[in-house]
Amino acid sequence: DVAKDVDEALIKQFLSEVETFQLQENLRELTKVPHMATSPGDEETVKYVLKRWQDPETGLDEAWRQEYKVYLSFPDPKNPNKVTVGDSSDAVLFTVREREVNYTADQNDPQVVQPFAAYSPAGEAKGKLVFANQGKPSDFQYLNNTIDLRGTIAITRYGGEGRGQKAINAAAYGVVGLLVYTDPLDMNDGLMSDINETYPHSWYLPPTGVERGAYSRDFGDLLTPYLAAKENTYRIPTEDITGIPPIPTQPIGFEDASTLICALAGDRAPNDWQGGFKCVYNLGGPGFKAASPFNDSEVKLDIHNNGAIVNSANVMGVIRGSVEPDRYVIYGNHRDSWVHGAIDPSSGTAVMLEITRVLGRMVKQGKWRPRRSIIFGSWGAEEFGLIGSAEYTEEYFTKLSERTVGYINVDISVFANATLRASAMPSMQSVIFRAAKQVDAPGLASTSVYDNWIRYTNRTSPTHGLIPRVGYLNGAGSDYAAFVHYLGITSIDMSYTYDRSKTKARIYPAYHTAYDTFDYASRFIDPGFVAHQAVGRTAGNILIRLADSLLLPFNCKDYAESLEAYLDTAVTLYQKDLEAKDISMEPLIQAVANFRKAAEQLDKVIQSSDLANETPLKVRKINDQLMLMDRAFLNPLAFPHEYGFRHVIWASSSSGKPTFPGIADAFAQANSSHLDSDWGKVHYHVSVVAQAIEGAADMLNEVI
Amino acid sequence: DVAKDVDEALIKQFLSEVETFQLQENLRELTKVPHMATSPGDEETVKYVLKRWQDPETGLDEAWRQEYKVYLSFPDPKNPNKVTVGDSSDAVLFTVREREVNYTADQNDPQVVQPFAAYSPAGEAKGKLVFANQGKPSDFQYLNNTIDLRGTIAITRYGGEGRGQKAINAAAYGVVGLLVYTDPLDMNDGLMSDINETYPHSWYLPPTGVERGAYSRDFGDLLTPYLAAKENTYRIPTEDITGIPPIPTQPIGFEDASTLICALAGDRAPNDWQGGFKCVYNLGGPGFKAASPFNDSEVKLDIHNNGAIVNSANVMGVIRGSVEPDRYVIYGNHRDSWVHGAIDPSSGTAVMLEITRVLGRMVKQGKWRPRRSIIFGSWGAEEFGLIGSAEYTEEYFTKLSERTVGYINVDISVFANATLRASAMPSMQSVIFRAAKQVDAPGLASTSVYDNWIRYTNRTSPTHGLIPRVGYLNGAGSDYAAFVHYLGITSIDMSYTYDRSKTKARIYPAYHTAYDTFDYASRFIDPGFVAHQAVGRTAGNILIRLADSLLLPFNCKDYAESLEAYLDTAVTLYQKDLEAKDISMEPLIQAVANFRKAAEQLDKVIQSSDLANETPLKVRKINDQLMLMDRAFLNPLAFPHEYGFRHVIWASSSSGKPTFPGIADAFAQANSSHLDSDWGKVHYHVSVVAQAIEGAADMLNEVI
Ligand SMILES: [Ca+2]
Ligand SMILES: [Ca+2]
Ligand SMILES: [Zn+2]
Ligand SMILES: [Zn+2]
Ligand SMILES: [Zn+2]
Ligand SMILES: [Zn+2]
Repeated sequence: DVAKDVDEALIKQFLSEVETFQLQENLRELTKVPHMATSPGDEETVKYVLKRWQDPETGLDEAWRQEYKVYLSFPDPKNPNKVTVGDSSDAVLFTVREREVNYTADQNDPQVVQPFAAYSPAGEAKGKLVFANQGKPSDFQYLNNTIDLRGTIAITRYGGEGRGQKAINAAAYGVVGLLVYTDPLDMNDGLMSDINETYPHSWYLPPTGVERGAYSRDFGDLLTPYLAAKENTYRIPTEDITGIPPIPTQPIGFEDASTLICALAGDRAPNDWQGGFKCVYNLGGPGFKAASPFNDSEVKLDIHNNGAIVNSANVMGVIRGSVEPDRYVIYGNHRDSWVHGAIDPSSGTAVMLEITRVLGRMVKQGKWRPRRSIIFGSWGAEEFGLIGSAEYTEEYFTKLSERTVGYINVDISVFANATLRASAMPSMQSVIFRAAKQVDAPGLASTSVYDNWIRYTNRTSPTHGLIPRVGYLNGAGSDYAAFVHYLGITSIDMSYTYDRSKTKARIYPAYHTAYDTFDYASRFIDPGFVAHQAVGRTAGNILIRLADSLLLPFNCKDYAESLEAYLDTAVTLYQKDLEAKDISMEPLIQAVANFRKAAEQLDKVIQSSDLANETPLKVRKINDQLMLMDRAFLNPLAFPHEYGFRHVIWASSSSGKPTFPGIADAFAQANSSHLDSDWGKVHYHVSVVAQAIEGAADMLNEVI
Repeated sequence: DVAKDVDEALIKQFLSEVETFQLQENLRELTKVPHMATSPGDEETVKYVLKRWQDPETGLDEAWRQEYKVYLSFPDPKNPNKVTVGDSSDAVLFTVREREVNYTADQNDPQVVQPFAAYSPAGEAKGKLVFANQGKPSDFQYLNNTIDLRGTIAITRYGGEGRGQKAINAAAYGVVGLLVYTDPLDMNDGLMSDINETYPHSWYLPPTGVERGAYSRDFGDLLTPYLAAKENTYRIPTEDITGIPPIPTQPIGFEDASTLICALAGDRAPNDWQGGFKCVYNLGGPGFKAASPFNDSEVKLDIHNNGAIVNSANVMGVIRGSVEPDRYVIYGNHRDSWVHGAIDPSSGTAVMLEITRVLGRMVKQGKWRPRRSIIFGSWGAEEFGLIGSAEYTEEYFTKLSERTVGYINVDISVFANATLRASAMPSMQSVIFRAAKQVDAPGLASTSVYDNWIRYTNRTSPTHGLIPRVGYLNGAGSDYAAFVHYLGITSIDMSYTYDRSKTKARIYPAYHTAYDTFDYASRFIDPGFVAHQAVGRTAGNILIRLADSLLLPFNCKDYAESLEAYLDTAVTLYQKDLEAKDISMEPLIQAVANFRKAAEQLDKVIQSSDLANETPLKVRKINDQLMLMDRAFLNPLAFPHEYGFRHVIWASSSSGKPTFPGIADAFAQANSSHLDSDWGKVHYHVSVVAQAIEGAADMLNEVI
């Protein structure tokens, strides 16, 4: 039936079948053992996901594993990384813990990987310690005013700067080794004691918990940019990798960090550098106070990380579309964790498996087959830089680009159980709202996810009045990155999250530590799995609507509203200075106006059509306009130094301004250098963005 | 009617209505005055094409002009370029002609532009003359063995190397000025006398004829790569333009060239440097023979070319599609000439206008409306580097890329009246053959264009046996370049051409001179306009088939055959050396095999379908596979230094090998430098091509 459309009764049925018990059992199964990418535990999850998707009663039409040979970085289990304080005769005065304290059985699992900074080079580094706040360029500049940083070791706290970038910033000043820790002020609302304050007594991070992570800047396999990493694929020499630490780097827990920081000599650090420890944070003499047990000792890093090219698997599954099999809706999450990864990523995988169970059963029972094809992706090696999803998009670039209607990413499905959050292309806003209105908020009788959400995060839209605030997908925080930035596919990333009035935690505190376990998730993050259920229902509802709607549920007028807001900001911030440089913003202003006009015009065409009764090629024409509009924002040459960033509206920006990223960054640069060539780059980016928006408007305009 | 298909009766009607008289009158009208890009004559042709396409009885649905502000280069009419021979006291001993001899009224038209090298810098250059053959790197290397080239003026003949590249090669050796001429051996089969041998007595070039041309390497507006050149578009500084002559450069006629060359001193030039003049070509002392009238004189160039940003117009016209208006078939040719441009480009424009007259009347009479939309483009400023078509593709990149089924380019429609020639993506071969079989060969009763063609240029296909040889679209010789290389659109470029057993002329001899006139075309190139008619019928037939076929007439198995031939060559030439460097060609071999399999598979799907009676979405699915397959060959990063070249199969190559261009060029480089990093680039290109072919195969495979 070419006019097949969304069946609201089927959506109700779907919502009713998403079960908290199933979600809980999925999570239990997925978190039995640590499953870092390519580890034996990872292989267990590959098999588990495959088993679920190949289940004859609740599985998909087809499921398979798909491997890439990717460059990962691991510590040496036989020769662990060491951080010590040693005196001048090399006597060890202090040793940083090599693993986290065991509270439940989980931390004792031999598969728990030692905390490490993935892609930090191996090597030995020794020097006097300094405290460098968050390791931002400005932090090292400040230190450098009074301290000769050459040959020192710097200790920095997480936050404010990318992980690997801290080391790159440090090395620029001659720092030879870097420590990174989580300050209790940033993560624990100041709490520090595992006697009664931190996990296992609460969700807060225990004193020995350490955030692991990829210390790389670019996403995708670092050796094979733009090429899928197969057996014989060309690989750049490892020494040509950019954006990784040039110096040995190691993350440590805050218990050890406090021992080091509280012993530092030197001037008192600025007020906004002070953290949660019960001592004054000094900058370092460099080195320790004479009065401290460490006196003139140095800190020494012995890092034994190794790079390795290893097989990482995506697990893929499909439900074939009945009417438009050549249109894809993709739903994905990574499968790999740092340790047990209950919240990150298994809370998302638990949701994905529950959605596939409910939909798979409908398919197997012959009750349903979507209009469009649905592809599920359980991505590998995300924690090392979104590798599985990036390689997938590299391999299938044209096919995905030409056929994909939308991508839904649910990584961590529940950061906390207070409210929904979503980041998406603006054209998806309406379908998100529609779905969120049909789902009950966890623990709140007769309140929808939508009504709950609007209380926590809202904005006043010129068109819609007060509505929940949907964020933008600017960064590369999870596997949506390749779909948004590289492919220009209309995407959403969503989860349940915090009540920000109750915590200032940077993220849920067990993030990337050995405490992110089933016990932690089920006791402190989402007791009863009701937030998991709400996310599963909302995401599944969106998925069904994307797959089944006769007319794609994308509203381009909402995209226009976002472009108008970006434009307002750009005009306010830049127009006067640009006019002085003879750079006109008129083409950009005109382009946004044309986009608005085209979006309104397409809307009129839709309103005045009887799509279910006209030729199926008519709705296909409009759907193609809606689907492909976002592709017009891609420019593969606009950001030549940033892997995969091609979307000129949502690319990441270091400017921090809510406007067109290329213009904002180029303006900041020109405004600081005052070079004519840099003003030329601003002009270039104005032209690039204007042309992209005109191109997007052309996609919405009458086709000929 | 969603099952609308090609109507063979309509094609017959179309063929019968293409008239030689109309073609002749089109050509007469188009060549009344010189119409160099943006000149008053160009504006007259803009208005004429618009008038034709807006004609209420024979016009299109809509037609409009579309302007870009592009960077062109012109001589100064008030201060003509001069080339002189002067002695040591600056007395002028000889002056090169500033304009061509007048034989018909045409050459006396004040709008005839002085011969010049577009994009040559203005400036004065003076030095002893040397003869540098074709100006290839090897030519200057040879000269440099015995002559210090610093400060010399070099004279080179056309051919063997790009126009502007001759000057770039020269400057690398310290040459300060460059002359370029057409050797009678290369163009006139040795004939030289305008008393009885050359035009107006034959098609051969008169002694004072000069080939004008763009001396630039890249196509598209040189100041706005990848951005449509609008009013406020960012422009690179003119001093940042690359690929244009670094030294003053001027083309001259062979009469003057012979005066200079025959007076040269120095060693005798190698045998294959000797040309058609009745003298020995010496290398130059440097400079002239003491016995010559010029003795120790120097040659002086006074070049007054100016760059200018000017409005150039494309004229666009459309016939809206009835069933799939969002699918485009584009047919184009440039409108601008160097002088009267009867053959280049007006023979093509005459054909385009005859096709639009016949089709336009059918549309206006309500007898026909194509299934898909047809877009006609009369491009501006092609002679300066395919600028109009390139700007058009930059402006509408996404829309054209997503919707264009095919592009047909007919620039010079008749080089000569012997046989058809066509270059195309291999998937177009079958529709070309089909059309060529339905058209009578000019002047040959009961012989088709196809049957005539196969006598002149043929090959033995593993699949089809003996067939006419369809060429590849590797270069950037006309406006197909942006469609093929930048957009990856399945394209064809065609014309009638020479009997190669009768002439060795590099191209028709009046090319880019003031002798390319209606008189020349109608007396010597295509008396009776029968070859014009055959091209119009063949191209129009192809156009109708692309626009009307229910199933797109693209045969991907023919693409497979070409890929297999490329692969065979690559394996033969490179595999042994690559294995020695540990570079496997296996992924490439596998990719070509997968492409073949996918093409066969899709063919089976097509054969086993009853497309006219199934849902229109089924044929649309297959058509999208066929249409978009070529896009998978695009890689915007594979050739970072070559504007617009993204198609990894058809990109231009300097290797001269009939195989994958990126691999061939990288291999040649590595094989000469022996650098590991260069072998790495070979490996990179093997991976790029293999991934592209796999991606193309994925487009043909079952969609899910
Ligand atoms: Ca890769
Ligand atoms: Ca341009
Ligand atoms: Zn994650
Ligand atoms: Zn993570
Ligand atoms: Zn031409
Ligand atoms: Zn030309």
